[in-house]
Amino acid sequence: MPGEDTFLALDIGGTNVKSGLITRAGEILAFDSFPTSEGKGPEALAALIAAKLKALWNGASPSGRPRALAIGAPGWIRRREGIVVMAPNIPGWKDVPITRLMSQALDIPAVLENDANLYALGEWLSGAGRGCANEITLTLGTGVGGGLILEGRLWNGSFTSAAEIGHIPLGGVSRVCGCGRTGCLETVASAIGMAAIAREWIAAGRETLYEGDPRLIDTLAMLDLAARGDPMSLSVFKGAGEAIGFVLSGVFNLLSLELAVIGGGGSGAFDFMAPSVLEVMSRHLVTASMDQIRVAKGALGGNAPLVGAAALLTEAGY
Amino acid sequence: MPGEDTFLALDIGGTNVKSGLITRAGEILAFDSFPTSEGKGPEALAALIAAKLKALWNGASPSGRPRALAIGAPGWIRRREGIVVMAPNIPGWKDVPITRLMSQALDIPAVLENDANLYALGEWLSGAGRGCANEITLTLGTGVGGGLILEGRLWNGSFTSAAEIGHIPLGGVSRVCGCGRTGCLETVASAIGMAAIAREWIAAGRETLYEGDPRLIDTLAMLDLAARGDPMSLSVFKGAGEAIGFVLSGVFNLLSLELAVIGGGGSGAFDFMAPSVLEVMSRHLVTASMDQIRVAKGALGGNAPLVGAAALLTEAGY
Repeated sequence: MPGEDTFLALDIGGTNVKSGLITRAGEILAFDSFPTSEGKGPEALAALIAAKLKALWNGASPSGRPRALAIGAPGWIRRREGIVVMAPNIPGWKDVPITRLMSQALDIPAVLENDANLYALGEWLSGAGRGCANEITLTLGTGVGGGLILEGRLWNGSFTSAAEIGHIPLGGVSRVCGCGRTGCLETVASAIGMAAIAREWIAAGRETLYEGDPRLIDTLAMLDLAARGDPMSLSVFKGAGEAIGFVLSGVFNLLSLELAVIGGGGSGAFDFMAPSVLEVMSRHLVTASMDQIRVAKGALGGNAPLVGAAALLTEAGY
Repeated sequence: MPGEDTFLALDIGGTNVKSGLITRAGEILAFDSFPTSEGKGPEALAALIAAKLKALWNGASPSGRPRALAIGAPGWIRRREGIVVMAPNIPGWKDVPITRLMSQALDIPAVLENDANLYALGEWLSGAGRGCANEITLTLGTGVGGGLILEGRLWNGSFTSAAEIGHIPLGGVSRVCGCGRTGCLETVASAIGMAAIAREWIAAGRETLYEGDPRLIDTLAMLDLAARGDPMSLSVFKGAGEAIGFVLSGVFNLLSLELAVIGGGGSGAFDFMAPSVLEVMSRHLVTASMDQIRVAKGALGGNAPLVGAAALLTEAGY
């Protein structure tokens, strides 16, 4: 594809490292994925990633040179310094200067961003949020991530992180979050939170079709059960939808957004959650009528952060 | 003041109409105020306002011509069309094309904005928010208004209104709001809401120093009582502070702001509320540490919207 701008994109997750060669429009020209555990320690993992990215780039685009690399990382990052301060799900990752490591190894500029923010940019560029100026994205995974697009740009705010929608507190909820705080949205809408509620309900003798070991129930099993009409799983998803709708009501009343995109693994339950999300929002929304706004399921799946890399690098001037 | 840019500013309230001749920096060169009830009906009021503005301008600045007029209005407005759709506290104001009426009468351009937004711009330009890029303002009055400054600009969002912080729902609160919805922040933090709670508590026999007719208690009386250690009034203000802190936790976690400014008549109780606001925020804030953010009382008082007019008109290119 001579003459066309290409970028490299990297999504470092707790389980897999995904990489892609992408166009400015977010089209993925080449893709690779390998288990994060293959790289023991930050430096070894960084070297492995660099080798994979080089192979990807040489294999798919021998003539052209990608203009820059966007790195998506979970946990707590320092965007400007290009440092992953802590990634709780990647052993040993503390204060890793990932941007410097990568740009040195590949000899191209690199930019670091939170993975949930890259997800939001991806859905905005060519997914469910295409054409929307003002939107929020929730990623329902192990936790609940968030990304905010305001006037077509990723919102970062004043300090290290913004769009921490998973840690917006729910009134009247006393569940303790992984972050140590109480009543965060994440405690009822994340995969871990929903599974914990299911376990408690099973232990309390609540009616369910589930027949396995209660300790092993997860959202995947609950999805199957809900499809078969399991009242327990349906109630958990309904509760998560209500909590999401409650938080989104506040977010929309504050920012007057057009769209909320719900993605991540937990969005497999979108159809079970959406009615409750909308019902709660219809009771609290003041900045628009319900037919002016939308709540949509993410359209790009797990590759959204790679797609979002194109938007991030374009916005950064590459 | 030859050579200096001046603007006209107008703040149409339910009780008074305030007007000012202001500099670009927000300095008020001349000021006037008269009871809103002096103008019977929108057209008569508009004519009266125009006459007052002309007198203000000619009296204070006979040589110069103000570049534009900023109009602050309460209720529901259509910013771009310059129409006050409905102002519940001003009898007869429905679909008033105030911008056209004023610019025709004065022969200068006019821009319409929500009064709570003008308040936010005023505190940002030369009040408690001076020098802050990202901040939110709450005005505790009859209702609870809000204004949001993002990257030094007023945030409007996708639809007719944004920053409706008074209608962000509180979980676990079932009080009915003036807007008809349930659990809005306004139900516990507005002057009307706080007085209603006080009346209920007096009726329920709660300990208080208040000796008057319970139906007549208002936040002004409660301020006096609180200063004398009245447990009932102190509890109402504490509850309002907790609710504000709860909502601000969510707002700060979403937007990563630096500052919240609390103004309006109810901010007379700022010192009674602030400890609860900060205590709740310290339990829920994830986007910054408590020493990176501030919650401050508004510094400009009732003239903040007139000051904000200067920022609005500068931003609009005048």
